[in-house]
Amino acid sequence: MAKKLVLHPDRLFPADPAIRAIARRLYGAVQTLPIISPHGHTDPAWFADNEPFGNATELLLAPDHYLYRMLYSQGVPLASLGVASRKGPSDADPRDAWRLFARNFTLFRGTPSHLWLSHVFSLVFGLDTVLDEKSADHYFDSIGAALRTEPFRPRALFERFNIEVLATTQSPLDPLAQHRKIQASGWNGRVITTYRPDTVVDPEHEQFHDALRQFGELTGQDVHGWRGYLQAHRLRRATFAEAGATATDHGHPTARTADLSEAECERLFARVVAGPVSPEDAELFRAQVLFEMARMSLDDGLVMQIHPGACRNHNRWLFEQYGRDKGADVPRATEYVSALKPLLDRFGNDPRLSIILFTLDETSYSRELAPLAGHYPVLKLGPAWWFHDSPQGLLRFREQTTETAGFYNTVGFNDDTRAFLSIPARHDVARRVDCAFLARLVAEHRLDEDDARAVAEDLAYRLPKAAYRL
Amino acid sequence: MAKKLVLHPDRLFPADPAIRAIARRLYGAVQTLPIISPHGHTDPAWFADNEPFGNATELLLAPDHYLYRMLYSQGVPLASLGVASRKGPSDADPRDAWRLFARNFTLFRGTPSHLWLSHVFSLVFGLDTVLDEKSADHYFDSIGAALRTEPFRPRALFERFNIEVLATTQSPLDPLAQHRKIQASGWNGRVITTYRPDTVVDPEHEQFHDALRQFGELTGQDVHGWRGYLQAHRLRRATFAEAGATATDHGHPTARTADLSEAECERLFARVVAGPVSPEDAELFRAQVLFEMARMSLDDGLVMQIHPGACRNHNRWLFEQYGRDKGADVPRATEYVSALKPLLDRFGNDPRLSIILFTLDETSYSRELAPLAGHYPVLKLGPAWWFHDSPQGLLRFREQTTETAGFYNTVGFNDDTRAFLSIPARHDVARRVDCAFLARLVAEHRLDEDDARAVAEDLAYRLPKAAYRL
Amino acid sequence: MAKKLVLHPDRLFPADPAIRAIARRLYGAVQTLPIISPHGHTDPAWFADNEPFGNATELLLAPDHYLYRMLYSQGVPLASLGVASRKGPSDADPRDAWRLFARNFTLFRGTPSHLWLSHVFSLVFGLDTVLDEKSADHYFDSIGAALRTEPFRPRALFERFNIEVLATTQSPLDPLAQHRKIQASGWNGRVITTYRPDTVVDPEHEQFHDALRQFGELTGQDVHGWRGYLQAHRLRRATFAEAGATATDHGHPTARTADLSEAECERLFARVVAGPVSPEDAELFRAQVLFEMARMSLDDGLVMQIHPGACRNHNRWLFEQYGRDKGADVPRATEYVSALKPLLDRFGNDPRLSIILFTLDETSYSRELAPLAGHYPVLKLGPAWWFHDSPQGLLRFREQTTETAGFYNTVGFNDDTRAFLSIPARHDVARRVDCAFLARLVAEHRLDEDDARAVAEDLAYRLPKAAYRL
Repeated sequence: MAKKLVLHPDRLFPADPAIRAIARRLYGAVQTLPIISPHGHTDPAWFADNEPFGNATELLLAPDHYLYRMLYSQGVPLASLGVASRKGPSDADPRDAWRLFARNFTLFRGTPSHLWLSHVFSLVFGLDTVLDEKSADHYFDSIGAALRTEPFRPRALFERFNIEVLATTQSPLDPLAQHRKIQASGWNGRVITTYRPDTVVDPEHEQFHDALRQFGELTGQDVHGWRGYLQAHRLRRATFAEAGATATDHGHPTARTADLSEAECERLFARVVAGPVSPEDAELFRAQVLFEMARMSLDDGLVMQIHPGACRNHNRWLFEQYGRDKGADVPRATEYVSALKPLLDRFGNDPRLSIILFTLDETSYSRELAPLAGHYPVLKLGPAWWFHDSPQGLLRFREQTTETAGFYNTVGFNDDTRAFLSIPARHDVARRVDCAFLARLVAEHRLDEDDARAVAEDLAYRLPKAAYRL
Repeated sequence: MAKKLVLHPDRLFPADPAIRAIARRLYGAVQTLPIISPHGHTDPAWFADNEPFGNATELLLAPDHYLYRMLYSQGVPLASLGVASRKGPSDADPRDAWRLFARNFTLFRGTPSHLWLSHVFSLVFGLDTVLDEKSADHYFDSIGAALRTEPFRPRALFERFNIEVLATTQSPLDPLAQHRKIQASGWNGRVITTYRPDTVVDPEHEQFHDALRQFGELTGQDVHGWRGYLQAHRLRRATFAEAGATATDHGHPTARTADLSEAECERLFARVVAGPVSPEDAELFRAQVLFEMARMSLDDGLVMQIHPGACRNHNRWLFEQYGRDKGADVPRATEYVSALKPLLDRFGNDPRLSIILFTLDETSYSRELAPLAGHYPVLKLGPAWWFHDSPQGLLRFREQTTETAGFYNTVGFNDDTRAFLSIPARHDVARRVDCAFLARLVAEHRLDEDDARAVAEDLAYRLPKAAYRL
Repeated sequence: MAKKLVLHPDRLFPADPAIRAIARRLYGAVQTLPIISPHGHTDPAWFADNEPFGNATELLLAPDHYLYRMLYSQGVPLASLGVASRKGPSDADPRDAWRLFARNFTLFRGTPSHLWLSHVFSLVFGLDTVLDEKSADHYFDSIGAALRTEPFRPRALFERFNIEVLATTQSPLDPLAQHRKIQASGWNGRVITTYRPDTVVDPEHEQFHDALRQFGELTGQDVHGWRGYLQAHRLRRATFAEAGATATDHGHPTARTADLSEAECERLFARVVAGPVSPEDAELFRAQVLFEMARMSLDDGLVMQIHPGACRNHNRWLFEQYGRDKGADVPRATEYVSALKPLLDRFGNDPRLSIILFTLDETSYSRELAPLAGHYPVLKLGPAWWFHDSPQGLLRFREQTTETAGFYNTVGFNDDTRAFLSIPARHDVARRVDCAFLARLVAEHRLDEDDARAVAEDLAYRLPKAAYRL
């Protein structure tokens, strides 16, 4: 007999009855608040075109590196899961790929992917048995059938998910046609963009020189000179802001910033443009551009997000065969105190600037990030990120930052996902974990319940809206 | 209607009824033990002169960088809080500053400052409504009125707080007049000093050269030569010991120690004295002086405290405007295993020496500090410090050190505070958290309750007294 | 009256009744599963000769650096505990040493040694009072008497402990006579060896040159040339595999690997052989040998274990007086992401290879190790190791690795001990902690109980057997 899929209403709440009762009440106050999703990677074309999604494999498995990295770690070839390689799309049959996934779903026991998918299966698709080898076809068929119906089109799901605002992320080279199409469509879903200039900022990116050339064409600037390069950024940032963007996003290897003289910048940029670039110059250039991005934010008001610390595409063979972003990114120790000093020395006390810091190195939570954010007016802490967007990860974030930075130097939750269907699941997990954390404070008489409810509401709704100037 | 301020008797105890019952019993055994405060920064003049404190802002807000750093992080100017700048005292009206603080008190939700202040408001001043915008004036007036009465003079509070011994911290340049005045006064409160030579040890301190000159004048030694410099330390240490000091305190950027030859020391010191000093020489000099301090402790028996890892005065603008110690210190990754080796190679097994190590980098608890203290007879671990003197911080300290170093290589609690009124609150939080930790061990049958009670008493009273040779 | 020694059946289970009930049920499913001990340091001679053990001090105290390091940290001289020095055996009377230990047993409150010893005293020896000064002689006499009986001979204990396979660790220079004797004896206990080549791999080991010479004599290879050196490894690995080994073990200071050209290897090896070796060459040589060990594993199928991060013999005086492995090893920050890249670039996707990574630096759990093992098919995570083989240490391992790497990129438990009698105690603690962790997931509806039971069984039995190819 098939095993029931049960999404318990008390999931993620502590077992202790006193704490659980408080957590339930707090969660009751935030469960249905609209979703603010200020940082993510969904495809704006979904909302521009509003075409139906394909099948379970295309929608849920093949694009989700959380899923296929785990399967790959246990010897499952990526091609068999429908993941495209540099040679082109996978020729795996989507149903076969789904069966393979289903057969290995036990690997996800204890992981956030298991929680998110159970939420999607149960609440979005109404499935009521667990996913395993036997139910694989039933899942594939049911999901496929649902996706062909109107209520499962992107805009309908957006509305059903109660999303108040959804930010996507685009390169400066993106013409933002999808966002314009959404705006022109008359649909009132708010889908905004974010300025993420990595390809024109990172001289070690394999597309840097091509991207730079396009950057010049798009803006009409001489982007091979330092001033023209900066002006091109200013122009694209303005265009992004007009298209709704309220933030920029910077995914550098480190948090390093630099405050070089104009002459030094020009010489450095000349070396970067001439290529080949040394690792030291590449790092210094990224550092200086981060500084320039802060300076531009003083004028255009875009909130800066700094996401350092990932060693991207660590698996050489996989990168050569499958390309970027295939689940082979690995965090590294990340330093903030020296790295940010040049930027903070200049702009750290400027009320026009707002910087949201993320980390993949949890050791920096209590040691560096909470003390920095608990002092500098320009700094706020982004939520537990990526590998740490998980029940224990979210809890460690609160446990290690709250006592020094408080709740009000944090910015609520980011889902940071391209898995559109998982957005409500991810926000729900974050809300539950925050309520569980707060409930323990209440039960231990460290916070009264009225205050805890106010904090829960702030974390779920008010803080992200304010921090991202939405 | 004003909201009641309630200090729950079970605060900070785990919610589970079985653990809480044990925690209550353990706490009952330590709640009223005298306070041993072997490391702190109160002003000895308070106890020498026994003059009344001023008002709520002057006593509780303006000197407490835990409070104004959080307010500053949310955009509140320091001057508006009564904090003095380099130009002189703040001209903010104390009542206005207090109102501003009260209006923003919600920022402290979930922080130890909230717990400590609630304790002070409720138990020291008998206030029974929470602090908020509406109660701000009532607070200001009530606290001001209390401070003008005899029971709120410093000595009366010292006695009421059941402090058995309170250590302050002085520079070698301090004539110790206040401590002598206390001793001569006939009052039997025990207020001792601690030898903290940073200004004459750190060549990067802006007052180093002035301090060195005064050091020579005070001791009659040629402190611009290495031997005279060391002899000056010996003389001042002896004077401090005569005034009651049992310990020295060293707040270096790193834990580095060095064991140079006499000739190398002389050459290094000549460069340091000549100035300007290179960062490498400054670091090496501090390292060598730490080694010399250990050598002197073999003779005079002063316990060494090493507090590395803070990047001081990180905010450049704030430092320029407001000076040192304004809540802009940020911890950094701190290494102990190599750093301490020169010192330990010479003195690590000497029964005359006792060194208490602190850290702001919690990653070193389980990785370096507990293994070092769990082996070397000269090493003990100071408690969770500064940013980690908080319920979760204290708990992480116990969770990450006990299994390797045990309880008996730790030294109980330090309040490390200049906020005199918060001393009982801080010790109370530490005692509660230790009891909560121990209660969990008992409830999980990892320790029996008799043993847990003995440990609780040791941590609260016996260990600090023994470790500091009081 | 003597205090009862009670080993509570619910020890280490969370106090919350709902979680505890689940933990009990999960533990019931794994409590009596056979012990797989794939990594340890017991003496194969015990099982080859099956001679009775000596007395309590010789068996339990003098060889256990967990015990004497703690006593030493509180000023107890090693010689008084029966620990041999470089000059020869301790002349302490074993009974006196035991009394000294008993008198100080309170130092171990809250440590895993206390848990393990309580298990040994109660369940192995049937003692029913706690160890303290008064019971010291009773313990010494009872244990001594038991050890003289047949049921306490090594093979009888091995069977009573329900050990299915026990791996010991040998140098390549070991003739494996004991393992051959066990195999020839007709006894059906499975005691296998592990290839641990540190002495012929680490040019900084004081025995390196001697060991290298013997390595050549034993294998008939010219081990002072790079090719002969590699061939000697191949031959000894084959011999170890024939004697039952399924794994190699590498205890390097760091995790660094290198992929040098043949010519570079030859030049490097020539420098290493010529000596004295520079620290850089020593490190590079170890890195290259690790790479070669991986390459050999492709052919002979031995599983690699990499245990980096200990600064060995940190206490100089103790090393000079007492030699290696005397409880003075201290962990250091350990980096994996860059260190392993050369090896992973070549072999990271090869299905023939399996590498088990350990760490003493818990900061790498969530930041580096779980992301690496959650992606690379060749990588698995060894359990919480050494200082972290403790209830909180095991729990932190699960909390910080599971969400990214899942359970199935971990390999169950290793006892890693030379304290034979503690093996069941250590596995019991690990099983209880895993069940406690799983029970919490069940109680919080993050995993259903059937799945949790399957995971508990996998962690206790199936995963170590599979990971070590047993």
